[in-house]
Amino acid sequence: MANASTRAEIIIGALPYIQAFRGKTVVVKYGGNAMVDPALTTAVIQDVILMGLVGMQPVVVHGGGPQIDEAMKTSGLKPTFIHGLRVTDAATMRIVERVLVGEINQSIVASIGRLGGSAIGLSGKDGGLIRARKAPATPGPDGQALDLGLVGEVAGVDPRPIRILHAAGYIPVVAPTASDEAGATYNINADVVAGEMAAALSAEKLVLLTDTDGILGRQGQLLSTLSLQDVERLKADGTINKGMLPKVGACLTALRAGVRKTHIINGTRQHGLIEELLTPEGVGTEIVA
Amino acid sequence: MANASTRAEIIIGALPYIQAFRGKTVVVKYGGNAMVDPALTTAVIQDVILMGLVGMQPVVVHGGGPQIDEAMKTSGLKPTFIHGLRVTDAATMRIVERVLVGEINQSIVASIGRLGGSAIGLSGKDGGLIRARKAPATPGPDGQALDLGLVGEVAGVDPRPIRILHAAGYIPVVAPTASDEAGATYNINADVVAGEMAAALSAEKLVLLTDTDGILGRQGQLLSTLSLQDVERLKADGTINKGMLPKVGACLTALRAGVRKTHIINGTRQHGLIEELLTPEGVGTEIVA
Amino acid sequence: MANASTRAEIIIGALPYIQAFRGKTVVVKYGGNAMVDPALTTAVIQDVILMGLVGMQPVVVHGGGPQIDEAMKTSGLKPTFIHGLRVTDAATMRIVERVLVGEINQSIVASIGRLGGSAIGLSGKDGGLIRARKAPATPGPDGQALDLGLVGEVAGVDPRPIRILHAAGYIPVVAPTASDEAGATYNINADVVAGEMAAALSAEKLVLLTDTDGILGRQGQLLSTLSLQDVERLKADGTINKGMLPKVGACLTALRAGVRKTHIINGTRQHGLIEELLTPEGVGTEIVA
Amino acid sequence: MANASTRAEIIIGALPYIQAFRGKTVVVKYGGNAMVDPALTTAVIQDVILMGLVGMQPVVVHGGGPQIDEAMKTSGLKPTFIHGLRVTDAATMRIVERVLVGEINQSIVASIGRLGGSAIGLSGKDGGLIRARKAPATPGPDGQALDLGLVGEVAGVDPRPIRILHAAGYIPVVAPTASDEAGATYNINADVVAGEMAAALSAEKLVLLTDTDGILGRQGQLLSTLSLQDVERLKADGTINKGMLPKVGACLTALRAGVRKTHIINGTRQHGLIEELLTPEGVGTEIVA
Amino acid sequence: MANASTRAEIIIGALPYIQAFRGKTVVVKYGGNAMVDPALTTAVIQDVILMGLVGMQPVVVHGGGPQIDEAMKTSGLKPTFIHGLRVTDAATMRIVERVLVGEINQSIVASIGRLGGSAIGLSGKDGGLIRARKAPATPGPDGQALDLGLVGEVAGVDPRPIRILHAAGYIPVVAPTASDEAGATYNINADVVAGEMAAALSAEKLVLLTDTDGILGRQGQLLSTLSLQDVERLKADGTINKGMLPKVGACLTALRAGVRKTHIINGTRQHGLIEELLTPEGVGTEIVA
Amino acid sequence: MANASTRAEIIIGALPYIQAFRGKTVVVKYGGNAMVDPALTTAVIQDVILMGLVGMQPVVVHGGGPQIDEAMKTSGLKPTFIHGLRVTDAATMRIVERVLVGEINQSIVASIGRLGGSAIGLSGKDGGLIRARKAPATPGPDGQALDLGLVGEVAGVDPRPIRILHAAGYIPVVAPTASDEAGATYNINADVVAGEMAAALSAEKLVLLTDTDGILGRQGQLLSTLSLQDVERLKADGTINKGMLPKVGACLTALRAGVRKTHIINGTRQHGLIEELLTPEGVGTEIVA
Repeated sequence: MANASTRAEIIIGALPYIQAFRGKTVVVKYGGNAMVDPALTTAVIQDVILMGLVGMQPVVVHGGGPQIDEAMKTSGLKPTFIHGLRVTDAATMRIVERVLVGEINQSIVASIGRLGGSAIGLSGKDGGLIRARKAPATPGPDGQALDLGLVGEVAGVDPRPIRILHAAGYIPVVAPTASDEAGATYNINADVVAGEMAAALSAEKLVLLTDTDGILGRQGQLLSTLSLQDVERLKADGTINKGMLPKVGACLTALRAGVRKTHIINGTRQHGLIEELLTPEGVGTEIVA
Repeated sequence: MANASTRAEIIIGALPYIQAFRGKTVVVKYGGNAMVDPALTTAVIQDVILMGLVGMQPVVVHGGGPQIDEAMKTSGLKPTFIHGLRVTDAATMRIVERVLVGEINQSIVASIGRLGGSAIGLSGKDGGLIRARKAPATPGPDGQALDLGLVGEVAGVDPRPIRILHAAGYIPVVAPTASDEAGATYNINADVVAGEMAAALSAEKLVLLTDTDGILGRQGQLLSTLSLQDVERLKADGTINKGMLPKVGACLTALRAGVRKTHIINGTRQHGLIEELLTPEGVGTEIVA
Repeated sequence: MANASTRAEIIIGALPYIQAFRGKTVVVKYGGNAMVDPALTTAVIQDVILMGLVGMQPVVVHGGGPQIDEAMKTSGLKPTFIHGLRVTDAATMRIVERVLVGEINQSIVASIGRLGGSAIGLSGKDGGLIRARKAPATPGPDGQALDLGLVGEVAGVDPRPIRILHAAGYIPVVAPTASDEAGATYNINADVVAGEMAAALSAEKLVLLTDTDGILGRQGQLLSTLSLQDVERLKADGTINKGMLPKVGACLTALRAGVRKTHIINGTRQHGLIEELLTPEGVGTEIVA
Repeated sequence: MANASTRAEIIIGALPYIQAFRGKTVVVKYGGNAMVDPALTTAVIQDVILMGLVGMQPVVVHGGGPQIDEAMKTSGLKPTFIHGLRVTDAATMRIVERVLVGEINQSIVASIGRLGGSAIGLSGKDGGLIRARKAPATPGPDGQALDLGLVGEVAGVDPRPIRILHAAGYIPVVAPTASDEAGATYNINADVVAGEMAAALSAEKLVLLTDTDGILGRQGQLLSTLSLQDVERLKADGTINKGMLPKVGACLTALRAGVRKTHIINGTRQHGLIEELLTPEGVGTEIVA
Repeated sequence: MANASTRAEIIIGALPYIQAFRGKTVVVKYGGNAMVDPALTTAVIQDVILMGLVGMQPVVVHGGGPQIDEAMKTSGLKPTFIHGLRVTDAATMRIVERVLVGEINQSIVASIGRLGGSAIGLSGKDGGLIRARKAPATPGPDGQALDLGLVGEVAGVDPRPIRILHAAGYIPVVAPTASDEAGATYNINADVVAGEMAAALSAEKLVLLTDTDGILGRQGQLLSTLSLQDVERLKADGTINKGMLPKVGACLTALRAGVRKTHIINGTRQHGLIEELLTPEGVGTEIVA
Repeated sequence: MANASTRAEIIIGALPYIQAFRGKTVVVKYGGNAMVDPALTTAVIQDVILMGLVGMQPVVVHGGGPQIDEAMKTSGLKPTFIHGLRVTDAATMRIVERVLVGEINQSIVASIGRLGGSAIGLSGKDGGLIRARKAPATPGPDGQALDLGLVGEVAGVDPRPIRILHAAGYIPVVAPTASDEAGATYNINADVVAGEMAAALSAEKLVLLTDTDGILGRQGQLLSTLSLQDVERLKADGTINKGMLPKVGACLTALRAGVRKTHIINGTRQHGLIEELLTPEGVGTEIVA
């Protein structure tokens, strides 16, 4: 382990990054797969608290796929996916909302509090943060339109609740559920929500924590930096596929709205957020405009 | 139905009550039994929105007993009660939190939004609103101590999240779950939470909505106004018992902290809150210091 | 009389109107003829206080014709009118100002205070609220120009005093007198002042209280809603004439400046303002752009 | 006339006085007798405007005896005085209020505006500034109690309207009329109102402008500085009498409430206020605690 | 000496000037030659304090030529000038900064404090107030380029430190030294700094205090008012030359940025600033756009 | 060198210290001896900037002994010391002020700016920050009183300029010179100023950077933690002596005013401030109450 003097030098090495991010909003998507190990969760939450303390305005958006699957099983329901999106009937939606808002969101909020920060959980319904609308049917294998049920899209974001919580020193933690004008509740992909939040908040950065090291090339090598054109090409040739698609889509949404940098990094790597934000070495894949 | 002129006179009749409550905090406990009929829920929520618009600072605390029972059944768990308090093991607590925070709280928040107000849901964990501690064992029939598991008490309330939401024009909606310093999550009786919130916020009034007309005497007659001494006597002779005990306890907690008036009224009566707050006729039972 | 439950329903019926007018400025012209009955005055003032309490920003502009006539008689002066405008020499102006500012304005301010509101009286001179200029000569029956003396027009409005009083929670009560840059004092038609105030304050609504039910058609029937074109036609054919002319002119001034709705209603009808603002039934005549 | 260099030296000579009065409230009573000459009025108003510009918070309280007498004569009423206090029946009160609020107050407000300042007129009714109560009967020549009618005393002052106008940069101009809780309007001696305003506002100074050079001794000599004891002695031996009694009473009221200095000076002396406040030479009589 | 009444009239004569300058920024350049007599310095500082008290926002920019010369001599260095600009090597720069920031600036700040004001000294380095860059070489007698060493120009002004000190009630006192992006320290002509500060602060006025009566014509007569064209002509024919060149240049810089008036006046004339700002007689030379 | 992952862990290791110091004032005395190496100065300044960025409110107080000695030599003056305090005649004081305020202070301010922070330099004269008084004569070797000349003590501190600069985001850098009420300028020991600033600002911590590792015991071993009693004993037996005496005195001043911890650490150790403040290992000597 480094001695005190080396430690001090490493800490002071974070100075230029802290100066650069001062007062900037950074949206962190914390995925369901990256949440399963409590030690890792503690590490991620420490990172988010430190982000706030060095002057960034962090927003946490979380998912909860594995926990939802488990709750569905307990209730005797069988998860079904089309193109990686969960087919969501009313019974499923009820479980999704309970687990996302009533369990995972609360667990993150409580962990932040226990580690010395202060967070307030929000869903898209709270303070009218997110207006949802039903996602269009998705094309099935035979070209037919497949209805995903209560899977939603982001129709609008009201940044005011986030701004008020930031101004009061709280870290907002956002669950990806929201309702439409008729009052129906929707499950929205958390990557999509994170991208839209970054866009609506004119965030400096969007960081998506997942359980792989980033976007991998054909030979399994990490692709460190991708331009928008690179991304289009890799989607076309199938290198970017499945669960990586909504992540990449979130990055594009954010970049098009003026977010400067977007990152897909490995949330199972201890303090990867700090590595990415406060040390010279980037990690994972960076997608830039 | 009254003609326009009579309507106007009735509306202007609310003037002295609106003047009296201006800028005052009013805590409303909205119980699980009073929530089952959607039309009634709409009426209660309209009342709360109007409270805010005429200058009061409403706080809604909700319970959710029937909904929790149903969710437990779906998951194959059997509710057990001792002295009206739910015995809460870890599996039960998980369901309690999911249902209270992830379903009922969200449902009230969404309804307020749909009816033109703006609410933000909080549990005791959000912003450190409520610190919990384990409730002491309760004496059993044979004098033995019965452990209720994860049933908690209020160890402290931080009014800051409520004040910030009020200042920003949001109606806070509070679910009665909270964690202790070690991170354990507790289920707290919602009446108790409402009483403690009223006390901590120096509320003007505490109104508990239930599914009876108030405290009834031996002959089933409504007792309109009770003093603290009356309450002690009625508890001693068993007239006040069972589920009415925590309600009366919440009133006493609030009154001792300086809350001026406390009410137990019938939440299944359309716009009973408005009757109580904005017309000369009180409803239900009023307990005063 | 309605029972408590019906009363509560009627009160809650005001909710959508309260929501719609929240934070909006509403200018109320309260005319001399509508002021003579003390019970009616009390009713109008209660209405204005309630408007403030449910979140509107009311401004009261008052006239005082009958009271000025009476004061002139006491002083041995004989009122003269041309086209409904008072010919105002220096001696008359002195009486007009004394009565409007020193009697009627003070009487309204005191009534608001006695009924639990808080008002501050202003003339056009206070804080430079209104800059006046001499009204042009009016054409006489033989085409000659008739000088009305110290009858003024509104040359400009400084909304700052109104904004400051609103922000501090006071109801501004405005007397229609003002001075020009040379220091001469003018009497301005109160309807005209109300229209200009509504325009300068970007008010949501202008309501002119008079002593008839609104604008009446040829057969004496009430005309409920009129467009700008309707008004031009009715002026051309003489249906709108005499004292109704400045009222209609005030509505046009306000509408052209972006005020959404203007109303001419019967101020001698108990709580007509509340009927108009907070119940589904409109009263009187509404002129819209 | 002094040359430019001497002028500059004289202006800079005001520096220590400006430093001493910065941010301090100074109440100026401007009496009816001192108001009759327009040139003098202009001078007094310039002084008040300058007071505001160099950082003091001036409050003007005005009387209006001569103007009221004249208005009463015009209306065929005969002024009656007991111990220098106007016997005020309802008809007289109506004229008093019209003249004080609707003529003199407006005249001062307009003059301040014309000379480049910005003033807002208030009576005791505006914003609940002064609560009045009926003055006790005064002892008559034969020891009987003489009722003065609607002559009032100050029962309370709410400094909030003054503070709000000062904060917004307006000079408050106060007419000495007010109502009691039952709504009756009273005429209060303007010296008394000035003393009570100074007391309620914790003013630094109270300056009463009158039409004599100050308090004169037996030989007609000016008494420059008097202590509270001196004043008691001079009242006892009749040196202070008649109209000087309420002035001295106002000084005592203010001094007892902690006002540091009180002055009775000649308002018919050009720029006497500036002499008193901003030059080394005091004028008139100073009464100190 | 004038009597009290005349003094009061003279003071009130300042009223229109005080009204005109309220809230306006006035930059005063106080030159080294005008500083040598302590009585004069006291007079100038009183003037600046009074400017602040009557509502102007004064900024003092000072030079220090004679004091620097003296310090150089003490250190055995010989001052050299080209076109009136000090050739500044590193040793000289060190003395310049010590004397300007560590002696003259502190002396002015302390004097303001001793005379009842409150000042905070700034150099161009403090809070990044001024960014400097090396001045271009100046043409020598034979057309060759002469390097002046560490003589700088103003590359940019950040008005924020001045605004913050003004808002907190402090008088900013600015020494004309600053550094460039590479960290080199420069000596900038104080007249130039004053002109740039006036420009960057959108000042109402720039007043340069020097030791002559203003700009003199061929016959030694004072030129009271000059237009931009006049100035160009007088520069062309050599009437404006030497040390007056940077002063005139500062006026042009300020005028081009929208400053309304610029003045060159005699700082050795007692209270000349007050004469210029607060009496009808201007002094010195006024250059207007 | 540590890899990225280790670096991230070390950075996150600073989290609890950052949480503990959030919003707290920390006074850093940066001594003349610790300033001579530019690389070290850069390191100290980076530390101070980082302190500000992680939420502390740093105040830098600097000395300048070696630089003053050198400047005196250049001017042909010979430094004389009694008990480690510089005998300061008028000529010396002039050099002291020039060097401290005009050179060292400016150098620190400029360095902070160049490294991305923003600082404003203050002496005790600026904004009346420090009121000085002449230090009492010091006892000489033969018991006689030795006058130190213009050596001062702190008679009072006005924290307002520091608070305003902190609120605006600037780092205040304080030179230890100040004047008394008569206007005489004094040189105050910088350790003493730092102690008094920490006391007046209710600082959380006082850190004195010197050129030794802390307080050393008889055997030259570092004494890590000392209580007030330890300090008294070590002063009595001469272990603490010479230049360490004012440092220890500053710590005692601060501790008695409620400052929680005081430290004497080696400023020539790279990033020693960060080690002390943000890592588990303390360095130097800590004196606690």
